[in-house]
Amino acid sequence: MEQIRIVKIGGNVINDPTLLRKFLKDFAQIEGKKILVHGGGKLATDLALKLNVPQQLIDGRRVTDEETLKIVTMVYAGYINKNIVAQLQANKCAALGISGADGEIIKAHKRIAAIDYGFVGDVDEVDIEKLSVLLHTFGTIVIAPITKDAGGQLLNTNADTIAQEIAKALSHTYDTKLIYTFEKTGVLLDVNNEASLIHRLDKSYYKALKKEEKIFAGMIPKLDNAFQALKSGVATVCIGEAKELKGLIAGSCGTKIVL
Amino acid sequence: MEQIRIVKIGGNVINDPTLLRKFLKDFAQIEGKKILVHGGGKLATDLALKLNVPQQLIDGRRVTDEETLKIVTMVYAGYINKNIVAQLQANKCAALGISGADGEIIKAHKRIAAIDYGFVGDVDEVDIEKLSVLLHTFGTIVIAPITKDAGGQLLNTNADTIAQEIAKALSHTYDTKLIYTFEKTGVLLDVNNEASLIHRLDKSYYKALKKEEKIFAGMIPKLDNAFQALKSGVATVCIGEAKELKGLIAGSCGTKIVL
Repeated sequence: MEQIRIVKIGGNVINDPTLLRKFLKDFAQIEGKKILVHGGGKLATDLALKLNVPQQLIDGRRVTDEETLKIVTMVYAGYINKNIVAQLQANKCAALGISGADGEIIKAHKRIAAIDYGFVGDVDEVDIEKLSVLLHTFGTIVIAPITKDAGGQLLNTNADTIAQEIAKALSHTYDTKLIYTFEKTGVLLDVNNEASLIHRLDKSYYKALKKEEKIFAGMIPKLDNAFQALKSGVATVCIGEAKELKGLIAGSCGTKIVL
Repeated sequence: MEQIRIVKIGGNVINDPTLLRKFLKDFAQIEGKKILVHGGGKLATDLALKLNVPQQLIDGRRVTDEETLKIVTMVYAGYINKNIVAQLQANKCAALGISGADGEIIKAHKRIAAIDYGFVGDVDEVDIEKLSVLLHTFGTIVIAPITKDAGGQLLNTNADTIAQEIAKALSHTYDTKLIYTFEKTGVLLDVNNEASLIHRLDKSYYKALKKEEKIFAGMIPKLDNAFQALKSGVATVCIGEAKELKGLIAGSCGTKIVL
């Protein structure tokens, strides 16, 4: 099976031009097919502030009203996506940048939940056939976390989830490695001590650490996503720091998640 | 030869949600392969105003400084591009939205001229092979007028020129129809009288009308573009009103430009 790498970068990379530049240089050098899924970072919040659009967060998740949707569509699918694409191309990597809404590659619906997060999407399906054509033609695809529903409503969508859903869908035809990057070197036993990195985290260890409340808050949905991806056929999932991308690809850095 | 239609819409359509909705409904119904190239409209100017980024126009052309480039990248490649894509999809047209920078489909360089327009691009080349794969896979491509140079610098680029360059490049393999839409029903003998529509404009008539100053200002580069496209092999070029798209496609509305 041909290899594919799917890397998700978070706000901490996007917010730091020097870190982003280094990361994209490393990413451009990954051989073979690859997908970069990017989140938003504080640029959207900054723009909302400048435009006097009040931002509401519930449990760390942004509530996306109509004005906020405009902002995230501009920032994620416009500014961030095209700047990443341009930098990758400057590193001899002819990336194609799209949002999840383009070509109906990701089908989604508006989240219906007890808490109304507004125009937020949950992924239904990834069109593997079309995505495979793009991968075959361009080698590298950069995806902004905007999707849409059947009625043409754009939806702000969690980038971790998009990375996971794409990895799951591609795992049937590719040897798929999913890499989540964030601000830590990996999953830590003690969140304040980078030396406490867990190199290998299996399901039972994860359960125990959750019970002891050593793993908590934002790490829980991230790791739940990771285990779900493995269960659905993704060959490898790891979590680590963007500046260690080469080590994460090689398997020498970060936390490897195993069933 | 297979047919392809390339339609350029200007700011007057983008600025008017009702007109845009009707136009996209008509556009979605065009059979066969098609490309929509969109300009920016006043959304970018509005956003610049809100963000206190002063806008400088020289001869009606926007000077693109660094902050303005950020704004047009957000508005053109983000907000407008993705809203058009979502609306087309709601009309059963699974369009893919990209900018000229994506996948190195359009190669450009920063304009060097007596007047410094800032980060403005001139098109060097269109990658027909990659664009053809996208057309074959998605049928409909929506292109935002942002390109880049070899060094990875994003560039604000004239949408008329992008439409023309794409049409020229595709004319070798497709029976290519290029349609420019703008705020008038076509080229007018008297700019204030829509009834003075010129149905057919050839090169010698154009020269005569330019001499008489009946064709002037913004129409001149538009028509120069049109004649250049025909000379380079584009089968048909016409200019007319977006709300008459069906008639423009059928050849019953607008001005047909002929050599």
